Amino acid sequence: MHAAVRELEAEAGRDALTVPLVAARAGVTPSTIYRRWGDLQELLGDVAVERLRPESDPADLGSVREDIEHWAVDFLEEMSSPAGRSYIRDALAGDPDGSNAGRCSAYAVEQIEIILGRAERRKEIAPALDVLVDHVVAPMMYRILFRPGLMEAQYARDLVTAVFYRFLPLP
Amino acid sequence: MHAAVRELEAEAGRDALTVPLVAARAGVTPSTIYRRWGDLQELLGDVAVERLRPESDPADLGSVREDIEHWAVDFLEEMSSPAGRSYIRDALAGDPDGSNAGRCSAYAVEQIEIILGRAERRKEIAPALDVLVDHVVAPMMYRILFRPGLMEAQYARDLVTAVFYRFLPLP
Repeated sequence: MHAAVRELEAEAGRDALTVPLVAARAGVTPSTIYRRWGDLQELLGDVAVERLRPESDPADLGSVREDIEHWAVDFLEEMSSPAGRSYIRDALAGDPDGSNAGRCSAYAVEQIEIILGRAERRKEIAPALDVLVDHVVAPMMYRILFRPGLMEAQYARDLVTAVFYRFLPLP
Repeated sequence: MHAAVRELEAEAGRDALTVPLVAARAGVTPSTIYRRWGDLQELLGDVAVERLRPESDPADLGSVREDIEHWAVDFLEEMSSPAGRSYIRDALAGDPDGSNAGRCSAYAVEQIEIILGRAERRKEIAPALDVLVDHVVAPMMYRILFRPGLMEAQYARDLVTAVFYRFLPLP
């Protein structure tokens, strides 16, 4: 079903998608889709979340500061792209119970936890997970959703710098 | 049109809304709605943004710290309520060009600017507007959208405390 949505989107554009079209492409009846997803928006939400799933672990550059910065710059670039913005909106729109949104947030948390796990093994001082979510991830997502416009990589770097200067626990 | 949507929502629930129903209640033809809003989702987005508009200036409690804290606690309470969450989602969903999201963000900025204007007249040291947006507003909105669950007023207070301890410019 996910492949059918992706193919049709590439061929005909997102606005042309309908449940009968997706069903025909996937070789199922429309009622199969309605039973499993409720409606087109929920199916699109599910497909969007799947596309927002990170494909690999964050890069290991040897220090927590560099790892976080590299991850944040990548995250901002992907999420603020036209495709990224449209996936985030689809994920939030087709999400009656908030579970898609929770999955999106969990992806970011998992990536950050990998980086913080490495920091612990290297015995580095690192910001807390919640601090990174509130003061690096949240500002990026807020601007992507509420203040449309070009997002510069420098914005991600500045947030990381602020957290490392202002929020680091004492050694 | 906004009144028609509000009445029907109260009577029949949000999921029962259709363009012909809203048109009939408002005494117009459905094509009037399609011409002006495109579809039901855009109309609901417009109505939602209107409801998110603050009804009054933030309280003046005599100090910038108290004014920001009071505003943030109120904002979190309103936005994280079931009604607030559904308005935010409607605003983001029925928003093909991102203008609704921009209006939501502008409302918060205007309220904070009023508080910062008072601080300036009182000659108080205050955090910058962008710092308050990135480190108080954004974390609250991120949790409301991506980590559904109960939001405690203490969370808003802790964000304000962090900004006043960690981000205040030097006198």
